[in-house]
Amino acid sequence: MKLASLKGPTRDGTLVVVDRALARAVKADGIAPTMQHLLENWDALAPKLRDVAASLEGGHERHAFDFRQVLTRGEVAAPLPRAYEWLDGSAYLSHVERVRRARNDKVPESFYKDPLMYQGGAGAMMGPRDPIRALSEDWGIDLEGEVVALVGDVPMGATPAQAAAAVRLLTLVNDVSFRRLIPAELAKGFGFVNGKGANALAPVAATPDELGDRWKDGRIHLPMTCDVNGKQLGNPDAGADAQFGLHELIAHAAKTRDLAAGTMVGTGTISNHDLSAGFACLMEARLVEQVETGAAKTPFLQFGDSVRIEMRDASGASVFGAIEQQVISASAGIQPEPRG
Amino acid sequence: MKLASLKGPTRDGTLVVVDRALARAVKADGIAPTMQHLLENWDALAPKLRDVAASLEGGHERHAFDFRQVLTRGEVAAPLPRAYEWLDGSAYLSHVERVRRARNDKVPESFYKDPLMYQGGAGAMMGPRDPIRALSEDWGIDLEGEVVALVGDVPMGATPAQAAAAVRLLTLVNDVSFRRLIPAELAKGFGFVNGKGANALAPVAATPDELGDRWKDGRIHLPMTCDVNGKQLGNPDAGADAQFGLHELIAHAAKTRDLAAGTMVGTGTISNHDLSAGFACLMEARLVEQVETGAAKTPFLQFGDSVRIEMRDASGASVFGAIEQQVISASAGIQPEPRG
Repeated sequence: MKLASLKGPTRDGTLVVVDRALARAVKADGIAPTMQHLLENWDALAPKLRDVAASLEGGHERHAFDFRQVLTRGEVAAPLPRAYEWLDGSAYLSHVERVRRARNDKVPESFYKDPLMYQGGAGAMMGPRDPIRALSEDWGIDLEGEVVALVGDVPMGATPAQAAAAVRLLTLVNDVSFRRLIPAELAKGFGFVNGKGANALAPVAATPDELGDRWKDGRIHLPMTCDVNGKQLGNPDAGADAQFGLHELIAHAAKTRDLAAGTMVGTGTISNHDLSAGFACLMEARLVEQVETGAAKTPFLQFGDSVRIEMRDASGASVFGAIEQQVISASAGIQPEPRG
Repeated sequence: MKLASLKGPTRDGTLVVVDRALARAVKADGIAPTMQHLLENWDALAPKLRDVAASLEGGHERHAFDFRQVLTRGEVAAPLPRAYEWLDGSAYLSHVERVRRARNDKVPESFYKDPLMYQGGAGAMMGPRDPIRALSEDWGIDLEGEVVALVGDVPMGATPAQAAAAVRLLTLVNDVSFRRLIPAELAKGFGFVNGKGANALAPVAATPDELGDRWKDGRIHLPMTCDVNGKQLGNPDAGADAQFGLHELIAHAAKTRDLAAGTMVGTGTISNHDLSAGFACLMEARLVEQVETGAAKTPFLQFGDSVRIEMRDASGASVFGAIEQQVISASAGIQPEPRG
């Protein structure tokens, strides 16, 4: 089953069921008004939505509409337009290794057993076509392509197996990062606040069964393509080099507290040891350039630049639809247009 | 105006207006079903709620009920039962100075101009009488008494003056901390995930005008009393030694992203330079003991221990009601009773 949210009438959006081809959709608000409501009442409501999905796939939904059109018009919100918690792991240690190597440092041994994780903001997720707003190019604007799990209620102290059973939906996230703000912020020791911006999700979230045998050990075994200004930055395999599966990251996050339904847990920037896979963020390209040539030459994102993040299955079909965002200049202290 | 939330029927609770004496309350769900809904529609709805508050104060609300009774029965939720963002500053540098001094370290000069802040979980806030659940006493369970602001929408790059205007409500928070998990977690460099538990809010949140001239420069100029097992741990003045006002902390959090209505921003543990004020967390008592006597002797919280956090005005009246919690042993992987 594939699900999305249209923008409005409230900040939680309107839940829709989308067909496998991401071509047609139908509102699900008679069953569950919003994705958050669905995640809180999954066992009761998901079977009904699966019936709608089957009927949509069979061409029997009279009120179905063209999903591609509403997506193009910018009317699609993040599948979960706002989340109570956003916990982002760092499962791909080749990403961490490159960061450390560039500063002549090693990855602590503990990182291979105890996941790195930070908590970020998700009170206003960007839709898949919403612009990345920044006040200055000097922030060092970067994308981070990741896989994210939307979970049901996870009790404190849940095992990885319990956590695996709580994974309701999977999708992609662009964890927007402001690289030049991060070193000073991390030096303070309390993690990221200013170094991370609002994040975008892919148009559609899918139940794990949609991935077939590509969903295994809490990992999606498919490459994710990241383009900047139409040029491929990388297509690392999300299953290849993940030190931790999503079930392990979720269990880590739940060690000392319950995670409420609607919590999002991310893998961290996808990264492969194989350099030919390229990168899912600009910083990693720069770090490799710095080590190999003495200087980083790939620029961070400038106003007007565009990014695209997508995952295709073995047949070449887009699994979640593409995140396609343009970076734009915003004015300080000015509320953007209403989201609802 | 003073507001609270009763538990249920949904996870967002039911909004109620409470009188100044915290004795009687009346449901406000005809005007705003939930605190989150109110915070998203403050300008339209707050005047109507102020009318209800005036009518309640005058004894004219036919459906008013005994607030103290529902509080005692554990039916009062946090005023905002779940929040999309919880950003906690560290405004009281005597707290930071004591931490650093105990490890023979100095506070970096930048901390006096650039606030320390972390993002934590608030997807399931504890009500003011809910137990603090932990899996082990070895976590080093501690309270942290703080002031917290509930804000409306704050645009990216808002000035401190804009941030001040976005403060809708004030209350107290117990930012539960697991001290023995924190050093290893902070050493990883990404902030707190396991080191902080679910947090509790005081029974009632109040509009800033309820504080009169005690609300000034983004600070509440009143002492906050913290008791452990009925014995006073401290009553530091929340206005005395705050390096940053809440408006400055909110503006800091909004530097690179919009903050959505319903975001909570905290002051960090209240702490005074004057040691006779005592402490709002056990760790600080232990650090002072360590420096003065060579060994910390105040224990962290054990199962069965109780904490109480309250702020009284000049006349001795409780402003927000008391947070009163007992620490209990929880079982791993077991969902607590439904909150809604």
